[in-house]
Amino acid sequence: MEVWFTEKQTENLSLSCQVSEVLVNKVTSFQEIGIFETPSFGRMLVLDGYIQTTEMDEYLYHEMIAHVPMNTHPDPRYVLVIGGGDGGTVREVLKHPSVEKVTMVEIDREVVEACREYLPVTSQALGNPNVKVEFEDGFQFLNRHPGQFDIVIVDSTEPVGPAAELFGREFYELAYKALAPGGILVAQTESPFYNRDLIVSSHKYLKEFFPVVEMYLAPVPSYPGGLWSFTLASRQNQPTAEEVLQKAKQPDKCKYYSPEVHRGAFILPPFVQEIISQKEE
Amino acid sequence: MEVWFTEKQTENLSLSCQVSEVLVNKVTSFQEIGIFETPSFGRMLVLDGYIQTTEMDEYLYHEMIAHVPMNTHPDPRYVLVIGGGDGGTVREVLKHPSVEKVTMVEIDREVVEACREYLPVTSQALGNPNVKVEFEDGFQFLNRHPGQFDIVIVDSTEPVGPAAELFGREFYELAYKALAPGGILVAQTESPFYNRDLIVSSHKYLKEFFPVVEMYLAPVPSYPGGLWSFTLASRQNQPTAEEVLQKAKQPDKCKYYSPEVHRGAFILPPFVQEIISQKEE
Repeated sequence: MEVWFTEKQTENLSLSCQVSEVLVNKVTSFQEIGIFETPSFGRMLVLDGYIQTTEMDEYLYHEMIAHVPMNTHPDPRYVLVIGGGDGGTVREVLKHPSVEKVTMVEIDREVVEACREYLPVTSQALGNPNVKVEFEDGFQFLNRHPGQFDIVIVDSTEPVGPAAELFGREFYELAYKALAPGGILVAQTESPFYNRDLIVSSHKYLKEFFPVVEMYLAPVPSYPGGLWSFTLASRQNQPTAEEVLQKAKQPDKCKYYSPEVHRGAFILPPFVQEIISQKEE
Repeated sequence: MEVWFTEKQTENLSLSCQVSEVLVNKVTSFQEIGIFETPSFGRMLVLDGYIQTTEMDEYLYHEMIAHVPMNTHPDPRYVLVIGGGDGGTVREVLKHPSVEKVTMVEIDREVVEACREYLPVTSQALGNPNVKVEFEDGFQFLNRHPGQFDIVIVDSTEPVGPAAELFGREFYELAYKALAPGGILVAQTESPFYNRDLIVSSHKYLKEFFPVVEMYLAPVPSYPGGLWSFTLASRQNQPTAEEVLQKAKQPDKCKYYSPEVHRGAFILPPFVQEIISQKEE
């Protein structure tokens, strides 16, 4: 018999895909975890009913959340990833030879364990000797580590459940303080079609602390609306400065990121510019 | 009771949205037509089970299929739209003051009649005195009108059913011949995630006739994968030439298109460049 998984993207809209094998389907202290084998997307990680990453399209999200800040910073050595339990962001960060240590802080140990067993494409990076995985709340971890990181990447789930606090003013203040001089924060900030309020508030809060706040876009087919936003906040470097783009290299085996794509991702259409300009109202 | 429409995007993947009212649901000589009122997308036109256009996101597709070629041509006066029965492409073309006449050739009169009744946001443009609507096969129409158009826009359905021939070598040859010197053809060429073979063959055929063939991308949430490709073939002008971009204007009330977005849409990520380079194998 056919088995299907359905993601309720909104009350009135859903995406369904056939499931050839249910590899994980359990409840942890923090959330529900599913890992499914699917004909459409390959293996797929689902948390609390929302698709997080799929073998078919994970490269788009992971390349763009990692290489844009890594190539904007002149010499990123110490990198913190908050969330990102599947390991895909860490894998991309490790492609930069300047990196000395990557710390991943994931609240849910069982997500990492499930991904290490069933999603090797992303999670194999977590076995790298320069990677330290901490199972802790990202908020508390930041509070204990001021001034230490060149790059902080917030690779969170939706702003409901365990990740809700990762989009608030206090969190962004802590992230600012956790950065070394010249440090850069990047956060995934959901869909410009469906999450306008979150984009507006994230921008407003980040602008209180950072002199440079810029949004960029990338397509992610398995996410609602298919177009995703990332917000980069920098203590110094502009992500689209000519010297940044000239120096940017295309890391090994990239299927979406290139220095030209980096430049193009910051070109925002009028409807997105309008969302961002609301922060000043 | 809740009523839902489901689009089977592939055998193993489907998108479903709640339907608050079925406005049209009929079979014509060419295809099945549905127009539904939905909470997610507003009114939605569906042909043979595939979503064609929705009030929520039609601007993305229509602005990008129209303004990129219109702004690439130095003085577009005579414009032909093949397909496009909802009228959205014609609406965008009419925003350019150089236009003297727009001819829309749609094979299915009942699509236009249904859209004129239930989708005024796109179809009201069809009442403009400079617009001529012809109900005919696009292939045959091109054959009878050599050398007449500055711009030909192929705003077709999927490459199955009535539109299958609109992606073939013979069709592109006729389209080339229907263009005046300096003329430009644009075709929607489906998803770079799901329709690689079609993109490869379209490029190969167009390259036989046109000196300039370039692909560009735009997000369309209601289409499979959420990222759409368009292929522009030009008898003369390069769509990303500096003089084209300097002269390009942002037409009235654009929510997605701008001259900067025009430039950025031609920046192709490595995985798309790889698809296109297959034409030379």
